[in-house]
Amino acid sequence: MSSIAVIPGDGIGKEVVDQALKVVRVVRPDWEPVPYDLGASRYNATGEILPDSVLDELDRHDAILLGAIGDPSVPPGVLERGLLLRLRFEFDQYVNLRPSRLYPGVKSPLADAKPGEVDFVVVREGTEGLYAGAGGSLHKGTAAEIATEESLNTRYGVERVIRDAFERARSRRGKLTLVHKTNVLTHAGGLWKQAFDEVSEDYRDIATDYQHVDAAAMFMVTKPSDYDVVVTDNLFGDIITDIAAAVTGGIGLASSGCVNPDRSHPSMFEPVHGSAPDIAGQGVADPLAAIGSVSLLLEHLGEPKSAAVVQEAVERELSTRVPGAPVATAEVGDRVAQDVEQHL
Amino acid sequence: MSSIAVIPGDGIGKEVVDQALKVVRVVRPDWEPVPYDLGASRYNATGEILPDSVLDELDRHDAILLGAIGDPSVPPGVLERGLLLRLRFEFDQYVNLRPSRLYPGVKSPLADAKPGEVDFVVVREGTEGLYAGAGGSLHKGTAAEIATEESLNTRYGVERVIRDAFERARSRRGKLTLVHKTNVLTHAGGLWKQAFDEVSEDYRDIATDYQHVDAAAMFMVTKPSDYDVVVTDNLFGDIITDIAAAVTGGIGLASSGCVNPDRSHPSMFEPVHGSAPDIAGQGVADPLAAIGSVSLLLEHLGEPKSAAVVQEAVERELSTRVPGAPVATAEVGDRVAQDVEQHL
Ligand SMILES: CC(C)[C@H](C(=O)O)[C@@H](O)C(=O)O
Ligand SMILES: CC(C)[C@H](C(=O)O)[C@@H](O)C(=O)O
Repeated sequence: MSSIAVIPGDGIGKEVVDQALKVVRVVRPDWEPVPYDLGASRYNATGEILPDSVLDELDRHDAILLGAIGDPSVPPGVLERGLLLRLRFEFDQYVNLRPSRLYPGVKSPLADAKPGEVDFVVVREGTEGLYAGAGGSLHKGTAAEIATEESLNTRYGVERVIRDAFERARSRRGKLTLVHKTNVLTHAGGLWKQAFDEVSEDYRDIATDYQHVDAAAMFMVTKPSDYDVVVTDNLFGDIITDIAAAVTGGIGLASSGCVNPDRSHPSMFEPVHGSAPDIAGQGVADPLAAIGSVSLLLEHLGEPKSAAVVQEAVERELSTRVPGAPVATAEVGDRVAQDVEQHL
Repeated sequence: MSSIAVIPGDGIGKEVVDQALKVVRVVRPDWEPVPYDLGASRYNATGEILPDSVLDELDRHDAILLGAIGDPSVPPGVLERGLLLRLRFEFDQYVNLRPSRLYPGVKSPLADAKPGEVDFVVVREGTEGLYAGAGGSLHKGTAAEIATEESLNTRYGVERVIRDAFERARSRRGKLTLVHKTNVLTHAGGLWKQAFDEVSEDYRDIATDYQHVDAAAMFMVTKPSDYDVVVTDNLFGDIITDIAAAVTGGIGLASSGCVNPDRSHPSMFEPVHGSAPDIAGQGVADPLAAIGSVSLLLEHLGEPKSAAVVQEAVERELSTRVPGAPVATAEVGDRVAQDVEQHL
């Protein structure tokens, strides 16, 4: 039996997590997900972001389900760095997994995109790069100010995520694309490219490819069906997975996993969308990205069958929708949970 | 009379520059553009990338027209850093200007994009950020390697490009969007945001907006018609202008200017596309991005009337095209030059 921590977070985070938990209850009525109150409201009320004692408690679970973090009342960076990124780094979630598929019934902004043809996964590095927090400023707020941000990359960190991506490519269509900017970021890019080329020797059955990030950003729009697995650094992954979400029908449908493949700490599963304070509390947020994250969580915890049932229920729900029609959060949750129950 | 330097460069660079020069000859038969042999073939033959003496000569011109730089025979970064970026940095071309418009007759990959509605310009900072070349590596090629890249941002450099962008917004539809990643890159993002907010006090007539780069990458696909002027840093600008090119019909049509607004050194005008070695020498490269760059060059050198005529000739050429039909480089050049001649 697995033990699950739940961080609903802020805004629509709570609403969509409620629906995701309906699905969890159907699949594993024996699990007792433990809620943790973290995010903007706790910070505003107590000044606490992520107490070490809470971090220790979270660490004892097998996985974390997260809704969304962030509110305009908190300055940018405070909760992102102090909570979301801290969890990814402390729990060594080095594989930030972001599948993109265009489902039947979903309207892509692309004229020529066909459901079934666009189906790839981005393996975004999750513990290094420009997200390391290595930066600073001098003469802050004056005309003489300088500010720096440093991208830190280790062979250790880069190689392990590249190996993970090669493994995923092997269990999919056998194609892996490295995305970086080797022509400008020659040091970090050189390390990534060399590690990629060397690891590829162990995966001669996998077709490999390299694209600069600017070209990849373009091809995500013009030829998204060309990708199978993409591996890239933390910041490039942040950007291209939002393009990927856009072309496959919007960030409201994109699920993700911050995975620690070594299982030395819990992995975390979350919708890619944010807390959307503008629509919070109205019951109109789409819970499908959160429910899709439950499917990734089940897969990670060794329940591939129920993971597939949840995933298929999401797809069935999508296929009945009229594109553009409003969504009722709780009803979607009920419908999908019921559908899962019928197909288990 | 202005003095123009021409760097055809590599691959299709030469071919498209030849066409652009046809247009220059029609508009200003008195100019005598001076060609400079720089790029992969010179590097491969002599080991020279950009001799200081050549840099000095280039500096004496009023503007530079550049085709494309790069060839697979040269390791990544050598010509980019040593030639292209060196020119941008030595000539203090801090405004990297990238207009995006969807023209009638051009097929956008977006189902709902309408010509005329998508019309924005990205003002990309050109002399700072991660392009500064501040990085290094230790224990290179070993399992212990670390590699760094540092983003350097000064209030001086950030403020001047933001002011330029506000001015451009004033002469357009009066809307300016700052794109950064303030929630993760808190130091650099903080500097950018503070400079932006302070400068906006001098431009109260301009509507301002802020977007994280990942959200902007998404909105470029889902709502490109919302943008008027966008200002952003060097690397973010590199990525989002390729998305912008994709949604407005492809990088083959995107022109750009690396502008030194203070005129202390020459500005440089170039198509956004690369040297495309795969189609070089076949006479099938589209020269319209290079010709559009001539329009930006004329505008910069104080010839707005002929700049407009060239721009309109490009649009007329596009409106006669069958989307997807092959292009004959020299014929397009002849047609557009003739059209310009008729409308001057
Ligand atoms: C909220 C933010 C810190 C985060 C990131 O940049 O990783 C988000 O954009 C994401 O992609 O999960
Ligand atoms: C070739 C490369 C160095 C360059 C850049 O990254 O600026 C190109 O992508 C561009 O956008 O002009």
